[in-house]
Amino acid sequence: MGAPELRIIGLGGLPDVKPGDDVAALICEAAERQGTPPAAGDVLIVTQKIVSKAEGRVVDLAEVEPGAEALRLAEETEKDPRLVELILRESRRIVRQAGPVLITETRHGFVCANAGIDASNVGEGYVALLPEDPDRSASGIRAVLRERTGLEVPVIISDTFGRPWREGHTNVAVGVAGMEAFVDYVGQTDPYGYELRVSTLAVADELAAAAELVMGKLSGVPVAIVRGYEYPKGCGTARDIVRPPERDLFR
Amino acid sequence: MGAPELRIIGLGGLPDVKPGDDVAALICEAAERQGTPPAAGDVLIVTQKIVSKAEGRVVDLAEVEPGAEALRLAEETEKDPRLVELILRESRRIVRQAGPVLITETRHGFVCANAGIDASNVGEGYVALLPEDPDRSASGIRAVLRERTGLEVPVIISDTFGRPWREGHTNVAVGVAGMEAFVDYVGQTDPYGYELRVSTLAVADELAAAAELVMGKLSGVPVAIVRGYEYPKGCGTARDIVRPPERDLFR
Repeated sequence: MGAPELRIIGLGGLPDVKPGDDVAALICEAAERQGTPPAAGDVLIVTQKIVSKAEGRVVDLAEVEPGAEALRLAEETEKDPRLVELILRESRRIVRQAGPVLITETRHGFVCANAGIDASNVGEGYVALLPEDPDRSASGIRAVLRERTGLEVPVIISDTFGRPWREGHTNVAVGVAGMEAFVDYVGQTDPYGYELRVSTLAVADELAAAAELVMGKLSGVPVAIVRGYEYPKGCGTARDIVRPPERDLFR
Repeated sequence: MGAPELRIIGLGGLPDVKPGDDVAALICEAAERQGTPPAAGDVLIVTQKIVSKAEGRVVDLAEVEPGAEALRLAEETEKDPRLVELILRESRRIVRQAGPVLITETRHGFVCANAGIDASNVGEGYVALLPEDPDRSASGIRAVLRERTGLEVPVIISDTFGRPWREGHTNVAVGVAGMEAFVDYVGQTDPYGYELRVSTLAVADELAAAAELVMGKLSGVPVAIVRGYEYPKGCGTARDIVRPPERDLFR
């Protein structure tokens, strides 16, 4: 019996990504230099930060004028008012506010700290916003990969989110293209004949989490190739993962 | 430059685990049969179900007498009153109840549906409870592995939990031994000189999620070996991951 096995290959050696750069091309070139070009069946996981940089979603805080609401909230949270202004612009609503913690629902529907805006790996005085439409970003990278390699490679854009009840952050999928976000076991039966009723695995999130193990935060590895995983075929998105308000018990 | 790379090797061919079985011994034997014996630097991820089975935590519903509270809650949730009785016994408190959804805080402090009790892969009329102390279970497996192989292998017990705001389930760590549960970047600086302030990655959860990708729910792969991951050295536990009430905004 063959053991199921997958490999997660980190991709380093990308240049510092600038607005307008073709991330997919940079990934292909780095993968070839490294001797691990994309292959059929691979899933590509790309950290949000380089996508945001390429899409011009890095903001110079010096150019942000905080409004009254941002000034008030900045005082309460002891944050930079310009950062708070950006958080408000990127959010539909504030989910929780306590001390310095500001958890909002982004325009995409993601619930996370600071609307997913962060200041790491972008340079002093700058912050990176999430891509405007990370599913579209994933599709775009996938299209360029198809053009350059002829391969149909699913692409996941990942970001690092906190979560309730559990300490620490994990990487999740904020953009998905070329695969379903879930593997659904509902209606299948186990070896005992029991029919599974609620098991739907968010494998796009699990792939993002797995990729983080080779990416880290400071090692200059913004991309990972997952090789050997039989991903669920289909046309899912990260928006599918956003729980609709009427099903959400923790709004 | 070498690419960081890790492998996730699924382990199949374990027998149906019975109360009193030595899970660690079964794992070693299966790994050897499969030609992938544990090696130095591996992390072992074991699904909760086989640990619960070995520890006699599988309950015959016919032997459970539901109390008044269970009977009332069973009617509201349209669940089997005997299952609800077990959920109440395994829980400190009910976190949310809505329709058939019953989210509780287990005696370990985990917040999840049905106190982590489930009916899959245990046979008609039976359900499996979480191990009483999954950190201790992980330590126990680790100790037997050390005895049999001389290796210091970190062990993670995984289970499948839902989460707020996002659809689908992911695997998380409910037991940890032989490593820290987190990689902490707080105080480290990025290539731009920016000091990270809030990045603590719950890598034990990410390892559990990664392992799920080879385990699945129905493929008879209850164990995975993660090879090539530089796990954080230390003596962490899954209890470290439980957010203390005073830091929890979503009780």
